Amino acid sequence: MTSTEPPIITFLTDFGLNGATAACRGVMLSICRNAQIIDVGHDIRKYAIRDGAFLLRFTLPYAPVGVHVGVVDPGVGTTRRPIAIRSARGDVLIGPDNGLLPPAADALGGLVEARELANRALWLPVTTSTFHGRDIFAPVAAHLAAGDAEFDDVGPEIALESLVRLPEPAAVVAEGGIETVVTYVDSFGNIRLAGGRDDLEAAFGRLEDGVPLVAEFDGGPRDETRYGATFGTVPVGASIVYVDSLGNLAMADNQGSLATRLGIGPDRPVRILRA
Amino acid sequence: MTSTEPPIITFLTDFGLNGATAACRGVMLSICRNAQIIDVGHDIRKYAIRDGAFLLRFTLPYAPVGVHVGVVDPGVGTTRRPIAIRSARGDVLIGPDNGLLPPAADALGGLVEARELANRALWLPVTTSTFHGRDIFAPVAAHLAAGDAEFDDVGPEIALESLVRLPEPAAVVAEGGIETVVTYVDSFGNIRLAGGRDDLEAAFGRLEDGVPLVAEFDGGPRDETRYGATFGTVPVGASIVYVDSLGNLAMADNQGSLATRLGIGPDRPVRILRA
Amino acid sequence: MTSTEPPIITFLTDFGLNGATAACRGVMLSICRNAQIIDVGHDIRKYAIRDGAFLLRFTLPYAPVGVHVGVVDPGVGTTRRPIAIRSARGDVLIGPDNGLLPPAADALGGLVEARELANRALWLPVTTSTFHGRDIFAPVAAHLAAGDAEFDDVGPEIALESLVRLPEPAAVVAEGGIETVVTYVDSFGNIRLAGGRDDLEAAFGRLEDGVPLVAEFDGGPRDETRYGATFGTVPVGASIVYVDSLGNLAMADNQGSLATRLGIGPDRPVRILRA
Repeated sequence: MTSTEPPIITFLTDFGLNGATAACRGVMLSICRNAQIIDVGHDIRKYAIRDGAFLLRFTLPYAPVGVHVGVVDPGVGTTRRPIAIRSARGDVLIGPDNGLLPPAADALGGLVEARELANRALWLPVTTSTFHGRDIFAPVAAHLAAGDAEFDDVGPEIALESLVRLPEPAAVVAEGGIETVVTYVDSFGNIRLAGGRDDLEAAFGRLEDGVPLVAEFDGGPRDETRYGATFGTVPVGASIVYVDSLGNLAMADNQGSLATRLGIGPDRPVRILRA
Repeated sequence: MTSTEPPIITFLTDFGLNGATAACRGVMLSICRNAQIIDVGHDIRKYAIRDGAFLLRFTLPYAPVGVHVGVVDPGVGTTRRPIAIRSARGDVLIGPDNGLLPPAADALGGLVEARELANRALWLPVTTSTFHGRDIFAPVAAHLAAGDAEFDDVGPEIALESLVRLPEPAAVVAEGGIETVVTYVDSFGNIRLAGGRDDLEAAFGRLEDGVPLVAEFDGGPRDETRYGATFGTVPVGASIVYVDSLGNLAMADNQGSLATRLGIGPDRPVRILRA
Repeated sequence: MTSTEPPIITFLTDFGLNGATAACRGVMLSICRNAQIIDVGHDIRKYAIRDGAFLLRFTLPYAPVGVHVGVVDPGVGTTRRPIAIRSARGDVLIGPDNGLLPPAADALGGLVEARELANRALWLPVTTSTFHGRDIFAPVAAHLAAGDAEFDDVGPEIALESLVRLPEPAAVVAEGGIETVVTYVDSFGNIRLAGGRDDLEAAFGRLEDGVPLVAEFDGGPRDETRYGATFGTVPVGASIVYVDSLGNLAMADNQGSLATRLGIGPDRPVRILRA
């Protein structure tokens, strides 16, 4: 990086794009005027740590090395720790210690070091118990991005094993099918499932476009579907099982919302079987 | 442009402002760190190529000369071509060959040259069949914006006449009125109609504020309205027929949503008559 | 500020994040290529001047000194004046003279000078009567941000006392309680109330976490609640009365939407009493 390259700060919250995100952005730019701020998303479900973790994990590998701020923080102001994690790729992730950040750090080469944010010299002069995004996370991130502070300055080291991690849902290949669970629903109504291509091939062998499958969601519904590499392999409105652009097992309707059509949300178990 | 001016990349999708747009933005900034990225919009109706085309056409003339990425792409991964179009003003438009880009290129001085994106050296190293925005369009745009590649480098030239164009709805002046169609509904519920001031004057002569008109929507409803240059020429909640800030024939409620009040969406035919 | 620091333009509208905001942003960057544009918010309720004023007032103090554009403008094209206000901190606020800007200028150290936008040399060459955001406010702001024009150049001075100001709702401490009113509902469904910590202590003395209170909303409902410094002092789904990160009296559900649960919107009167 040359000295004139703008530093990167990525930013994910469940605030919506409004005054709260703007206040954080104002704080960041007050400290690091030439930052390139990349919004990873602000319209995820409120308090949905798992959704935030999913987005960070699958988005940050496409961003330049930088400082990444994640704020989905139902425990703000309680004893949950404010933390920074250094990744093997050279990134720093900043946010609450509630499971939001570690999966993304894994995807950025792995966790190298973690620290608890404790150095108040890097915070806003006045902090509140309800808005750590603005008062703590944004200014610490901006000082690091600006090069005013080093990772070691943010506070004392904490054991990587002490970080909160959410249980990772996994796919199980059994009885010629896959038992899995919805991990994320995107804005198209496409659903992501635990597991990937390996699980699909372990269950069904190598699949050709158009092979008929059935998806049985816990408590109903049941959807007759097909394997497809591309949405266009089925008629408009019909569904496919596919491996998404991030490597996740996934299901989608061609030019429609599968989640709306079937009434499916995150955490719903589903079995995929040969038809 | 001096060498230190940040390059412009504009960006329109139907993804929503979330991980998908963020991944594209990460790819762009990984290649062109100092780009100024202008979001043209990400919350248009899913798969609504015509809405995307409308927004690009009426927004891009206000942007600096730059690289413009449009991704409303129901045919991603099928045989529809990924393309780049050079405009007379000096812009490059990048996206799918499905009718999304040509109207904007018309508005930027006209189409000068088109090429099919085929040079994989400008794409991400691994590409998928479901996310060309991130894998193809974003990196090609960023290489052009950064000056790492020239327009000629993106792939072979294709005939301008071969580009997909959507039919353009038109206003018809007949029997002392205008037969037209809703082309776009904005976030205020104001509706845009095919045609412009010329059609209005051909039908009614030069109109003064307050001249009573009637709008008859196909299949109902019927709205008693008035011509007005400004929303404030009618009471709050009443409607006007006007020429919008882009030159389109339009209808709106003063401080209300005409589209919601009347239940009107895109493509609805309407006749405007003298009351 | 060094000469290479990017100028700050903040930007609030009720347009939504779509073609209209993008056109303004295109105009700004055409004039001031290296501006850092901070979106204060674009998804506030349409025509809700008071919501816009609230967001500007509480967000701008966290932004660097800059040019601030606010467009919530139901009277666009009528006789309401387009104005610029200079703050004691050195900011310039630009928008309609309808009460949107003065509270933020107060929060930026106070109003020093106001001018009516009248110098058409700083506007787009062609202006319309329905989109002053793009045609007048954006270009004037960008010329000031770029240093192409000084504050004195925008038009003639106008008396500060002549500026439109909305009535400021206030809390009244009476009969061992507080009579107040909802001033704003954020995206979490947390509500802001007129008044602050002083009013709370005048009514109840110094409160400890967990002190039971009752909130009686005009026309119902009635909510049994508690004082709390932090959301986590009550169970998930229960409400607290608190002082928010901006100093406002406020109420919220821990990890839920109080506004949705109780059906409460802006301007609803409420009494807070000891239980």
